[in-house]
Amino acid sequence: MTPVDRAQMAMVLEVTASPKPGNVDRCHDYEGTVLEHFLASAILARPALERAAGCGGGIGEILREAVRLTTAHGGGNTHFGAFILLIPLLRGGDIPGAVRAVQDSTVEDAVNFYQAFSLTKVRMLPGDPLDVTDPRALDVIRERGMTLLDVMEHSKEHDMVSREWVNGFRMTRRAADLLHRVGCGREGVVGSFLQLLSTEIDTFIVKEHGPLVAEEVRRKAAEILEGRRDLKAFDSECITRGINPGSTADIVIAALYIALGEGWEWDCFRKA
Amino acid sequence: MTPVDRAQMAMVLEVTASPKPGNVDRCHDYEGTVLEHFLASAILARPALERAAGCGGGIGEILREAVRLTTAHGGGNTHFGAFILLIPLLRGGDIPGAVRAVQDSTVEDAVNFYQAFSLTKVRMLPGDPLDVTDPRALDVIRERGMTLLDVMEHSKEHDMVSREWVNGFRMTRRAADLLHRVGCGREGVVGSFLQLLSTEIDTFIVKEHGPLVAEEVRRKAAEILEGRRDLKAFDSECITRGINPGSTADIVIAALYIALGEGWEWDCFRKA
Repeated sequence: MTPVDRAQMAMVLEVTASPKPGNVDRCHDYEGTVLEHFLASAILARPALERAAGCGGGIGEILREAVRLTTAHGGGNTHFGAFILLIPLLRGGDIPGAVRAVQDSTVEDAVNFYQAFSLTKVRMLPGDPLDVTDPRALDVIRERGMTLLDVMEHSKEHDMVSREWVNGFRMTRRAADLLHRVGCGREGVVGSFLQLLSTEIDTFIVKEHGPLVAEEVRRKAAEILEGRRDLKAFDSECITRGINPGSTADIVIAALYIALGEGWEWDCFRKA
Repeated sequence: MTPVDRAQMAMVLEVTASPKPGNVDRCHDYEGTVLEHFLASAILARPALERAAGCGGGIGEILREAVRLTTAHGGGNTHFGAFILLIPLLRGGDIPGAVRAVQDSTVEDAVNFYQAFSLTKVRMLPGDPLDVTDPRALDVIRERGMTLLDVMEHSKEHDMVSREWVNGFRMTRRAADLLHRVGCGREGVVGSFLQLLSTEIDTFIVKEHGPLVAEEVRRKAAEILEGRRDLKAFDSECITRGINPGSTADIVIAALYIALGEGWEWDCFRKA
């Protein structure tokens, strides 16, 4: 499996693994965003992922290309957060390489990132001077000479994906270790996802529903792991309330990319 | 979408569409062969599909490469029949081009095809002098100077995929027309699949369960379309009895490749 294959497999294995509370998975669609959108996104991003694994093009521009290739369908944002993690991981090969890749990011990468962002419908925090919906944000970035790493530094408090750029992909590393520990295949993905959800506040939920709901989800995930709450019932509750831990899914995808490269087995269905 | 994207999308859209009687789909696995195997196969075949769409390498050798790339996982045969159709379609671009491509096939293509075949666990008819499990089959092919098209001619009576090579991809064309007529997205795939199943004997079922069971499946599919039988109940019956119309699925994949190139919309989930 090439690194690009691993990135695509990571997206496919994450989205199909089920039951995962609240997210699109093998058994759940959202209205307007369905399983096929995520699978199409994994396939159609290939040229951008190939460029990331090669040496041509800046990270920001490749990110914009990945978003452009995968928002051709009508399903809205599917893998934007995952691309933010996978592209430096592909460029660097592994976590230390990705850390170097993000340190080399430029103002041009930041500008391209903002242009990618505006192709998605991902929310920003209100009142942010770097609000992507504000056309002056690009001027602010250029005036301040902010690199894409600086932009991530700016967003890290409210966004767990940005935080990965700043702290050496710490949660990605932790989630990959979880995969190795929890086990192979589908059950390993679901188990690691739940472990992560039970200990980390999902910032995508914070943006959509506020911090109280995000903390409630964390607590309920912990109760599932303690055997005090039913996973499928909680999944249904999340779907009904429109709560989807999308940033946790992004981290799990990055972790799958890493774990697959370290020998984690996706295919243990015969043993099951 | 490039032709290779379309081929991969065709494999993904076919396997996820549900409910399809008897086959692995979004909601069903077989023991040892699961949804993830089919999705992995669609992704991992990419280099072979790229070569098919380019001009390097013979069809038989590319087919062997596709099988080699996709039997690395433990799920057994996933897309062998689909590759037999997709590779000439990619080489030729469309059906007339594929007809020319198969006419240009050589003895070397036939030898490579047999080597690909032996990597799978697909059944041959007992007593066939070209039985893939018989090491003398390659000698027979070389002695008789059989091209891959000749091999397909030899198998056409018992194999609907081989028949496509010989009769100008007639059922592929018909299934693509069905997709345009039945409609877009998931429902279009399921509807076209059922229409095909209700009128054509699936030769994969014949090989596995004999002609009477294959005819029973055809009749029951027709009863579903007439509203006299429940689709989901029939799906469960097929799964329980291990009846899977795998060759019909291969034809639908080839048809999706063609239909996507003709503007058939896979993404009509907003309208649903």
